[in-house]
Amino acid sequence: MSTLPHWFYPIREQDNEVVILDQTALPHEHIELRLHRLEQAAHAIRSMQVRGAPLIGATAAWGMALAMRDDASDQGLEQALQILGATRPTAVNLHWALDKMAARLRPLSPTQRPDAAAAEARAISQADEHANRALGQHGLAIMARLAKSGRPVNVMTHCNAGALATVAWGTALAPIYAAKQAGLPVHVWVSETRPRNQGLLTAWELRQAEIPHTLVADNGAAFLMARGDVDLVIVGADRIAANGDVANKVGTCLKALACREWHVPFYVAAPSSTLDWQCPNGRAIPIEERCGDEVRVVSGLSPERTPQSTRIAPADMPVSNPAFDVTPAHLITGIITERGCAAPDQLRQLFPDEAGQ
Amino acid sequence: MSTLPHWFYPIREQDNEVVILDQTALPHEHIELRLHRLEQAAHAIRSMQVRGAPLIGATAAWGMALAMRDDASDQGLEQALQILGATRPTAVNLHWALDKMAARLRPLSPTQRPDAAAAEARAISQADEHANRALGQHGLAIMARLAKSGRPVNVMTHCNAGALATVAWGTALAPIYAAKQAGLPVHVWVSETRPRNQGLLTAWELRQAEIPHTLVADNGAAFLMARGDVDLVIVGADRIAANGDVANKVGTCLKALACREWHVPFYVAAPSSTLDWQCPNGRAIPIEERCGDEVRVVSGLSPERTPQSTRIAPADMPVSNPAFDVTPAHLITGIITERGCAAPDQLRQLFPDEAGQ
Repeated sequence: MSTLPHWFYPIREQDNEVVILDQTALPHEHIELRLHRLEQAAHAIRSMQVRGAPLIGATAAWGMALAMRDDASDQGLEQALQILGATRPTAVNLHWALDKMAARLRPLSPTQRPDAAAAEARAISQADEHANRALGQHGLAIMARLAKSGRPVNVMTHCNAGALATVAWGTALAPIYAAKQAGLPVHVWVSETRPRNQGLLTAWELRQAEIPHTLVADNGAAFLMARGDVDLVIVGADRIAANGDVANKVGTCLKALACREWHVPFYVAAPSSTLDWQCPNGRAIPIEERCGDEVRVVSGLSPERTPQSTRIAPADMPVSNPAFDVTPAHLITGIITERGCAAPDQLRQLFPDEAGQ
Repeated sequence: MSTLPHWFYPIREQDNEVVILDQTALPHEHIELRLHRLEQAAHAIRSMQVRGAPLIGATAAWGMALAMRDDASDQGLEQALQILGATRPTAVNLHWALDKMAARLRPLSPTQRPDAAAAEARAISQADEHANRALGQHGLAIMARLAKSGRPVNVMTHCNAGALATVAWGTALAPIYAAKQAGLPVHVWVSETRPRNQGLLTAWELRQAEIPHTLVADNGAAFLMARGDVDLVIVGADRIAANGDVANKVGTCLKALACREWHVPFYVAAPSSTLDWQCPNGRAIPIEERCGDEVRVVSGLSPERTPQSTRIAPADMPVSNPAFDVTPAHLITGIITERGCAAPDQLRQLFPDEAGQ
């Protein structure tokens, strides 16, 4: 972690282009894609070549910058906002980034918009990196307090809320990278995260960073907590409602419920771009239902390191595939943001400027 | 369901042989295996060609009968008990069946043992079928009470506790088959049950029986309950301790925790052969840790209906793979047995003869 590797920045500006890491090819192949047009950015979000709430937001911002190069008219601007805004419903960072782009670009003339859009996308990306570094330090302080002598801090996480889910550093993994840098021994329980297996992205990141970790089926969470093998859970978030309810990858809530039973602290790590003060509670968060084939067909890494997929259920088997669930605020110990950590019902006090208090 | 199909009896006596359905080939292939020797029965249990606590018990009983044909000496008897007893640690039905076989066979002479062993294995199988039919009726009464007008009863289950997990009828699915026969409309949420995907066995059974069902990733349980789409959960059990704690397929406890949060009744269905009155509580139940490749490699059904497997994680990725977890008694609404349904702390009153009261 002394010099940060390329994958640590899954979206970046390079030679006047936007370069992303194709996360549908990870961990078996390292493929970089160059985005030149709005539609490529929209496709990258929809197809989950980029995923993770903060990275979705940054990619949408860069998508706007690409769109403004081609058509910076009022109509082009509104159309681009609409196309990108419709890519995925749950992560509020998408709308947060598009709102920022709209506020910056609408007052300008078409000739001013291309440069201003790139500058704003750059600012959004930098803000994400800074926020994640800061929340990583706040999370590190929590982990240090929970450390027990004679063993590493055992953190369980869900999905991938690492560098790959953000512009850099990650959200749930930012405290873990901070611990690595600070010399605090950590071991991470990596949940597989069916149906898309994003836990394998987390395992891949942790291996690159030489942080000890163990993969476990999502079903194993209660077993490990009951045995005393989990000191805390840290997850990311796709949208945090004003009351502290948290939408995150489906399965998150089950971990929070297990934490309550076994008195394991349950933390959510997210930059303020994930806070939706307009959304009163979790019931108002739209939950994306994705294609059933994500459950019916498993894809992964063959021994020959080529992607392969296996059909585990017939094409006509009825499937329900919600991509997210909502963890009620009362199950959450604290929400770690760039301004510090607060209990869900105290979160407003960290953001009086944004929360309208 | 008017005439019961072959698969409904995954172990049976035929032409002086023991025939099992190879469940590692389901749902893509229907392969029957003929067991002739003790070691074949032990292998069938270890490799999960047969699985499910009651079926493990019945297979062990038939394994003893096969062993007695080859060597009915005292030494042969004790060796067979030992080999079968060491196949899998968690399901108590295995030891229940072997204890019954030992009690019946030890007092006899070697010449009497072969016929007596077959008779006892037959009796154990018939008792399982009768117990499951009876508990199915008790479960049906519960489902009928929970039925809401205008929609089918929505039952969620975990793993496969169907006919395939027993001698016939199943445990968790017995009330569902009873509902089908009684004309009570039912819809079943089938949890995938990683890492071995036994939910697909449940889906396969339900399709054969023409019972509406939907496959969902294990992670989806809380989402569906929060939305009000689950009327009750019924699962099977591998061992029930004297205090009502229940060991069952890993992931079961997460469903029970979600049930508590959303006030969904959580039932365990099991014949009395799954009750371990010698075991004070869940902490005393041995939990099997299985090979990590069950998590790293997913196998399933290819479009060509040939088995195929996909490696999703490198062979050297550290994996934890507990096969079961323990659901604490306080999360369980009721345990449905052949003698009726009781709250976990009332279970002794249904079995005063066995519980030592």
